[in-house]
Amino acid sequence: MTTNWVYRFDNPGSADNMLLGGKGANLAEMTKAGLPVPPGFTLSTSACHAFHEENGLTDSMVSQVELSIAWLEEKTEKKFGDPQRPLLVSVRSGAPISMPGMMDTVLNLGLNDETVVGLARNTQNPRFAYDSYRRFIQMFGDVVLGIPHYKFEQILDGVKDSAGLHEDQHMTAEHWQEVIAQYHKLVSKETKQAFPQRPMEQLKLAIEAVFGSWNNQRARVYRRINKIPDSLGTAVNVQSMVFGNMGHDSGTGVAFTRNPSTGEPGVFGEYLTNAQGEDVVAGIRTPKPISQLSQEMPQVYQQFTEVCDLLERHYKDVQDIEFTVEQGKLYLLQTRNAKRTAQAAIRIAVDLVDEGLIDYKTAVQRVDPEQLDQLLHPGIDPQAHLQLLATGLPASPGAASGMVTFSADEAERLARTGVKTILVRTETTPEDIHGILAAEGILTSRGGMTSHAAVVARGMGKPCVCGCDTLQIHERDKSFRIGDLVLKEGDTVSIDGATGRVLLGEVPLIEPKLSSEFEQILAWADEIRSLDVRTNADNPEDAAKARSFGAEGVGLCRTEHMFMAADRVPLVQAMILAADIEERQSALEKLLPMQEGDFYGILKAMDGLPVTIRLLDPPLHEFLPNLEELIAKQAQLQVRLQYEPQNHQWQQELAEVQVLLAKVKNLHEFNPMLGHRGCRLGMTFPEIYEMQTRAIYQAVAQLIKEGFHPLPEVMIPLVGHAEELRRMRRLVERVAAEVRVESQVDFLCIVGTMIEVPRAALTADEIAQEAEFFSFGTNDLTQTTFGFSRDDAEGKFLLQYTSEKILPENPFAVLDAKGVGQLVAMAAEKGRAVKPNLKLGICGEHGGEKESIAFCHEKGLNYVSCSPFRVPLARLAAAHAALKI
Amino acid sequence: MTTNWVYRFDNPGSADNMLLGGKGANLAEMTKAGLPVPPGFTLSTSACHAFHEENGLTDSMVSQVELSIAWLEEKTEKKFGDPQRPLLVSVRSGAPISMPGMMDTVLNLGLNDETVVGLARNTQNPRFAYDSYRRFIQMFGDVVLGIPHYKFEQILDGVKDSAGLHEDQHMTAEHWQEVIAQYHKLVSKETKQAFPQRPMEQLKLAIEAVFGSWNNQRARVYRRINKIPDSLGTAVNVQSMVFGNMGHDSGTGVAFTRNPSTGEPGVFGEYLTNAQGEDVVAGIRTPKPISQLSQEMPQVYQQFTEVCDLLERHYKDVQDIEFTVEQGKLYLLQTRNAKRTAQAAIRIAVDLVDEGLIDYKTAVQRVDPEQLDQLLHPGIDPQAHLQLLATGLPASPGAASGMVTFSADEAERLARTGVKTILVRTETTPEDIHGILAAEGILTSRGGMTSHAAVVARGMGKPCVCGCDTLQIHERDKSFRIGDLVLKEGDTVSIDGATGRVLLGEVPLIEPKLSSEFEQILAWADEIRSLDVRTNADNPEDAAKARSFGAEGVGLCRTEHMFMAADRVPLVQAMILAADIEERQSALEKLLPMQEGDFYGILKAMDGLPVTIRLLDPPLHEFLPNLEELIAKQAQLQVRLQYEPQNHQWQQELAEVQVLLAKVKNLHEFNPMLGHRGCRLGMTFPEIYEMQTRAIYQAVAQLIKEGFHPLPEVMIPLVGHAEELRRMRRLVERVAAEVRVESQVDFLCIVGTMIEVPRAALTADEIAQEAEFFSFGTNDLTQTTFGFSRDDAEGKFLLQYTSEKILPENPFAVLDAKGVGQLVAMAAEKGRAVKPNLKLGICGEHGGEKESIAFCHEKGLNYVSCSPFRVPLARLAAAHAALKI
Repeated sequence: MTTNWVYRFDNPGSADNMLLGGKGANLAEMTKAGLPVPPGFTLSTSACHAFHEENGLTDSMVSQVELSIAWLEEKTEKKFGDPQRPLLVSVRSGAPISMPGMMDTVLNLGLNDETVVGLARNTQNPRFAYDSYRRFIQMFGDVVLGIPHYKFEQILDGVKDSAGLHEDQHMTAEHWQEVIAQYHKLVSKETKQAFPQRPMEQLKLAIEAVFGSWNNQRARVYRRINKIPDSLGTAVNVQSMVFGNMGHDSGTGVAFTRNPSTGEPGVFGEYLTNAQGEDVVAGIRTPKPISQLSQEMPQVYQQFTEVCDLLERHYKDVQDIEFTVEQGKLYLLQTRNAKRTAQAAIRIAVDLVDEGLIDYKTAVQRVDPEQLDQLLHPGIDPQAHLQLLATGLPASPGAASGMVTFSADEAERLARTGVKTILVRTETTPEDIHGILAAEGILTSRGGMTSHAAVVARGMGKPCVCGCDTLQIHERDKSFRIGDLVLKEGDTVSIDGATGRVLLGEVPLIEPKLSSEFEQILAWADEIRSLDVRTNADNPEDAAKARSFGAEGVGLCRTEHMFMAADRVPLVQAMILAADIEERQSALEKLLPMQEGDFYGILKAMDGLPVTIRLLDPPLHEFLPNLEELIAKQAQLQVRLQYEPQNHQWQQELAEVQVLLAKVKNLHEFNPMLGHRGCRLGMTFPEIYEMQTRAIYQAVAQLIKEGFHPLPEVMIPLVGHAEELRRMRRLVERVAAEVRVESQVDFLCIVGTMIEVPRAALTADEIAQEAEFFSFGTNDLTQTTFGFSRDDAEGKFLLQYTSEKILPENPFAVLDAKGVGQLVAMAAEKGRAVKPNLKLGICGEHGGEKESIAFCHEKGLNYVSCSPFRVPLARLAAAHAALKI
Repeated sequence: MTTNWVYRFDNPGSADNMLLGGKGANLAEMTKAGLPVPPGFTLSTSACHAFHEENGLTDSMVSQVELSIAWLEEKTEKKFGDPQRPLLVSVRSGAPISMPGMMDTVLNLGLNDETVVGLARNTQNPRFAYDSYRRFIQMFGDVVLGIPHYKFEQILDGVKDSAGLHEDQHMTAEHWQEVIAQYHKLVSKETKQAFPQRPMEQLKLAIEAVFGSWNNQRARVYRRINKIPDSLGTAVNVQSMVFGNMGHDSGTGVAFTRNPSTGEPGVFGEYLTNAQGEDVVAGIRTPKPISQLSQEMPQVYQQFTEVCDLLERHYKDVQDIEFTVEQGKLYLLQTRNAKRTAQAAIRIAVDLVDEGLIDYKTAVQRVDPEQLDQLLHPGIDPQAHLQLLATGLPASPGAASGMVTFSADEAERLARTGVKTILVRTETTPEDIHGILAAEGILTSRGGMTSHAAVVARGMGKPCVCGCDTLQIHERDKSFRIGDLVLKEGDTVSIDGATGRVLLGEVPLIEPKLSSEFEQILAWADEIRSLDVRTNADNPEDAAKARSFGAEGVGLCRTEHMFMAADRVPLVQAMILAADIEERQSALEKLLPMQEGDFYGILKAMDGLPVTIRLLDPPLHEFLPNLEELIAKQAQLQVRLQYEPQNHQWQQELAEVQVLLAKVKNLHEFNPMLGHRGCRLGMTFPEIYEMQTRAIYQAVAQLIKEGFHPLPEVMIPLVGHAEELRRMRRLVERVAAEVRVESQVDFLCIVGTMIEVPRAALTADEIAQEAEFFSFGTNDLTQTTFGFSRDDAEGKFLLQYTSEKILPENPFAVLDAKGVGQLVAMAAEKGRAVKPNLKLGICGEHGGEKESIAFCHEKGLNYVSCSPFRVPLARLAAAHAALKI
């Protein structure tokens, strides 16, 4: 049996996304629904695999394509290469998961030196025919033959210059013929062959190019960022051409059935008259809003809105539609579920429930948790005094400030050194993706709401202002001009993607207000999820903020930040530098009331909810001056005293530096991450943990007296052996008992541990006997399991590891299920085997990442804990996880 | 039914070590064999447990003791408290595993103000009676009543002074009576009660004190060092006294049935006439060799040698015997298997096989692998010019040099900072154990071959010279004098424990020669063991040395040491500081022939045996100058240039320092242990691994051409993800293929990996697909599994962790079976599940530690690899492991 590689749009089988790609399946579905789709056929993703395996098209593919072209010729009553009625087709990629702009497309295929004459004659529009032909040569030359795009542009500019013209639309048929002649020469020179004239040869080459483009670099980068498997492959869609550039009753556009930025109902989109689709997507001409079509072509507009409604009801989701009007007749070229901002996703999901199209569980699944992050990004303070430079299109919401940079590479380089940038470009191309990823925000001078920059930025949740045409960008000078003002690379600007404003300098940002739809989606998510969501918060403000976002407790309160406050550092240093335990006790006694105040505040803010407080974790030298600075200072003073031996002040200073240096050197560690920290501090300096425990329970006693319900859970960090926890637990229980007696207040004393070194996971059965809860510290657990420190790895080799796919993901971003996750699962199982009610949570950064949250749900953890701003995300991700199983 | 707490020596049951303790069981066995043992009885270890549970003696214990005393009174025809024929007893501890000197003993119990008169009359020796009584009060006061020993000494010295006497043996009965009177006053003052006069009360108190002494500090320390469980408990032996101090026809001694230092046949030991046993053990008087007894008391000597022979045949092992001669009659007080040096253990084991007493498997088990280390310790070069200071007793073999120190605490403190010390003491006590452990060697001015220092040092395999009485030690001045020479703390001396020599300064050491018995034991071990033993060696000399010790290959050849050679450092630095890959390649090309030479040498030395070569592992900054030094240098130069801005040399130097500093800072890591090292280097700088691989296989090709059989195994370090190994393996295979073509020589290319981060163990099934062998790097695996770095932990908290038993052992010394071992077992199982013939080895330091070797045997590893000097130990330990299962 011969494999079927080719499927006509009207083929009676079901439209399978994986086989036909998203675009092919949709075209087939639309065709079968009787919508006005130009006829065509799809080469399946299986053909793509076979192509890559065989390193080319197989004979059976070619013969099936030839048969399908014959069918198409019959259907359209046109013929490949027929000068009378030439058949022209588009050749487009279409993967199972949409990758807009990532792969190649060829339009107007079938034109050659003869058919162009026929096209001109039949349409009575020679200018259009020669324009189409030159577009085809240009696109084919670029995509299929690999001739650099700028070489075609040079020819075009040369002809325009000698004709004294500036705009393409003023070019005549003769001008285009001149261009075509020069293009032919260029192709012959570059490829050592004439431009292929046989349409079938053109078609085979184009199909090969599209299949080949699955593996071009920008497509691979896009897939990596968007987590699309390399194994999917792309389909190729061959479709008879319709023309939006056949005069002023023709046009082309892209529209959404609802606003993809805000989610507001009503058709939303853009079109250009007398243009082909590429003109809209590429952002070269700024298009008109779709509403204007109702005036320019009222009947077409009427038909289009009806089609939109039909499609939305059919797919039960907002559609992103490409259409063309050819001499007053509407054609749909593509429809797909629309990408949307988080705000739009939420609004649309809630509206679709209200409209009865979907149920609430589906609505919850329609919102990508990662996207929520955008909504929680700060906006610009409306009270702030702003220096408005210009206004562009509000292409992707959110506000950002950063250093102006003009290249994606530079943006990436600066991001690695921690510098925030705004990437400023005339327009962006798929080659800029890494820069868009690295920048805080994107600003372009050309292109509309569906331009490349806008689409990509929205997908990434980056602020973006597009089509800001008052900007004059001089890439070579690394500067841009707005009116009289010249800004250079390194200057700071801000953008507001919600309003399109471009502002001078850095601006003050404020927290966003959340919509009622947002609250609705999260309320539904709360009904669905079984995982609790807590927050990581070290102070009452963060705790309150997180509580307002729905946090159900604090999963990690780090006490070291409390030690870093300016007024405490001298006390903390005195405690560390203490010569003996008495001196240390006296410093600790001064810290006690401060710590008590810290805990009082946070327990009050979280009244009635559990608050997991981790006792001091970092090595003590973190609180002392830097070793290298002290060494430099000592060296300087020693030399100064060689020159001025009698300087008493320096003698004094040197003596002080040397005392401090000795202590710092004594505390210095080769590998602080693996050093004297966590409960190892508690074992060697029990007085520190005693002070902290006392502060916690004195605050508890006070709050209970005031009528509150504090629920602290004391967490011992870095336990590797059950004995450590046993001793630290006894310490905490002893101090709690003391405070109970002193305060005459009764309260619970709950002690648990972090699981953050492999040994703790491996011996979780022993450790569980001493613990009332486990909290997985997956940051440290990832470091110890992989044996690399995040600080060193991210700067030195991890980027290469993820970009070259040595590791599938950055394990600090997405929990490594196979390695680290295996330890988490093992600890959960061993722990619960000993203590079935053992409470399990995660407090590493993974607690706010959706895949990791799904993992935690699957392994039966009780809660995840994340930063306050990721609490809504975690609530939603937990619901997704619950729906998945 | 009443529990039986008390067992008479002649009780007919079997002599159970666990119940009666070693001493009690032996006394029972000897009694039943008809040997001349003074009658007595044993309170069992069960009684000890009950005592600790009940916090005192129970009524049933007391009544059983009373019954047994009645039996003893009948047997000896003496009576407790009877002034006519007083019964006197000794009360001694005796645990199931011998702990010499660790617990308390009371002699002469039963004496009081009345019975002493009777004893004096009956023995016609008032001096002896009063001396015994004062000894009893003194010992009882110290051990039972807790009165400091020195207070008794003060009284004794006072009486001696006023009598104008220097030696105890010149004291008369009247002098002792004066001492006793003052002792009574001291006891009344210290305890607010008179010295107990009722023997039964004395006995109960003494039994309680001995049971209590199981938990005194020095006993606990001893058990920790010797890995004796705390749960064993001790028995108490109550035995009627015999007296070695009843005149010149009496005496007491300690003897071994063979020489415990050399293993030579023949009775070996020491005795003192007119003395009690404590005098010998405490080392206060220097005793006479046992051979002298044949002249002093020929009949006793004859009987004693017969008893020795009988005991050795009975126990099938060398015995350590305490005996007393009371007025010409021989009594045996104790026998036990003798502690012995490694040399003696080997000689004795082989001799006993020759004599038909034991089989060769038993012989192998008779030698403790840890002890072998002693034999492999270097001795003093006989060619060396030595400055002999003095000669003492050769108490424990081996030679050592170190700084003189006079206190155990100081020795321990210095050891922690890496300073080697010789602990110099008049005599050592159980309180000095930690110092003996920390010092390189022990030198005492008093005490014999069975003194505390000698016994403990031999057990630990430390060189020791005892009884070197020309030394005058002034502890207060921290100095000692030999003749006119005064040496102070901090001066360096050397000792030779094999000859007893004490030498000035540091001395050159040489390798030991191994006896034929040593070879015999190891040959037997080789027959028994299934684990292979390889060595860790980085150069041909070490490899050859290890091969001579029986190594069956190299398990770890570290290539970084090859980079540290003085002539290579500039090239290595040039390679690291290279601005681009071309510069780096050029530096690598210069290193290539050197590396090739390294591998040529080591593969040749190991001709026909496998050599596992680990590609470069440490982070590159280890080869560059120290960051702190550069910072200090920069600071100094900057200040100098402020004072002398025109100094060109300094300007030049500063510029150079700054360039270097920038690079060093760039390579600097927060946690080098978890940084850019191992295969992460190979991934980012593949040219380094390519050079190393090329060097290996070029050496292989050359050796094959020369007729050798090189068997390299290339090991990729620090793999955490299978993909790392896959890529590095492809690199190695590619270079190997290149060399095959270039050299026209065919050879195998074997690639494997270290398992040294937890993730590698957790995903060993994936990694095994790319590996031909796993080598467990348990040093790093311990660090990452526990999450502590050895460098930081050992200096900061690990000592406290092991001494307070938070951890049962230092996990860097003994493999942590529960945590790290769990990963080893998991990796072995997962790896073998995928690849049943996967070769498994261990190359961490644990590869040379006996318990860890037993673990490796149990988990089915193929080999262990250890430092050359531990190869014999590992062969023996592997045999022990095989015999155990």
